[in-house]
Amino acid sequence: MQAMPPRTDFAQQLCPVARTMAVLGERWAILVLRECFTGASRFDEFERRLGIAPNILAARLRGLVEHGVLERVPAEGGRHEYRLTEKGRDVFPLYLALKRWGDRWMAPPEGPLVELRERATGREVAAPPPLRSDGLPLMPEDVVALPGPGAPPALRARLARTPKDPADAA
Amino acid sequence: MQAMPPRTDFAQQLCPVARTMAVLGERWAILVLRECFTGASRFDEFERRLGIAPNILAARLRGLVEHGVLERVPAEGGRHEYRLTEKGRDVFPLYLALKRWGDRWMAPPEGPLVELRERATGREVAAPPPLRSDGLPLMPEDVVALPGPGAPPALRARLARTPKDPADAA
Repeated sequence: MQAMPPRTDFAQQLCPVARTMAVLGERWAILVLRECFTGASRFDEFERRLGIAPNILAARLRGLVEHGVLERVPAEGGRHEYRLTEKGRDVFPLYLALKRWGDRWMAPPEGPLVELRERATGREVAAPPPLRSDGLPLMPEDVVALPGPGAPPALRARLARTPKDPADAA
Repeated sequence: MQAMPPRTDFAQQLCPVARTMAVLGERWAILVLRECFTGASRFDEFERRLGIAPNILAARLRGLVEHGVLERVPAEGGRHEYRLTEKGRDVFPLYLALKRWGDRWMAPPEGPLVELRERATGREVAAPPPLRSDGLPLMPEDVVALPGPGAPPALRARLARTPKDPADAA
């Protein structure tokens, strides 16, 4: 085993974005959660809706339960159901943001496959775009990254410099 | 080769969410884009900031260029830079949604590693939560999925039934 530089540890173990991708950054995981959001809870429902191989589905469900995104609870007839935890329900805004990008950039020419509508009003549902204080769309260049309370020293030192500081681009 | 049921084709080839995960559903891809959002553009910048192995970085950058998320452009000194395309810049809201979930559920006890602030005002930046028409947070059960213009017949038939319709749960 070769010793890894600290940066790799940071990216793979600490960084919440990297850790999020370890949980959700797998196509089937997101598709399983999507089916949960639209009411699926049983193994055979996921299997039928997704056309996923049972062994892959079982592994994905196990992973989502281990990560606390789903919980496996007894259901009638000796079966089990998979229910979203609070952590799992909180993926819904992220799913909407993902669907928004996918519908815009990856949909077939005819348009999105699925439209989400508010049950009570019929209004089309989409992730709200982030806005600047002046109401215009928020762009990457409008934002600066600063160390948060959990920043390790190396990250803190890097972020103390401005993103385009020559010391950083050396 | 075994024949696959149509559902698998739909999930793997057509569905924009599945296709999105094929492009972005890889931890390094998102981390590379995050560094783009905060000003990185050169191979050595990505390499240093992420502590990523050069061969993996090269493969990720190639993939992001192939998918039209980054473009590779000549820079001074015979070097190249990677710049976000419009498609790539449009990942920013999705990145913010991902960071929001990660900071809430996957951050270390001390808190988030990075805070994003609006450059002009210092205001903390976060993905806006989706809301119902009455202003309350939008939950999965508030939403119904209907066939969109690109829905293939099998999906159209399934979504014509209500999510908890007995015919769907059979």
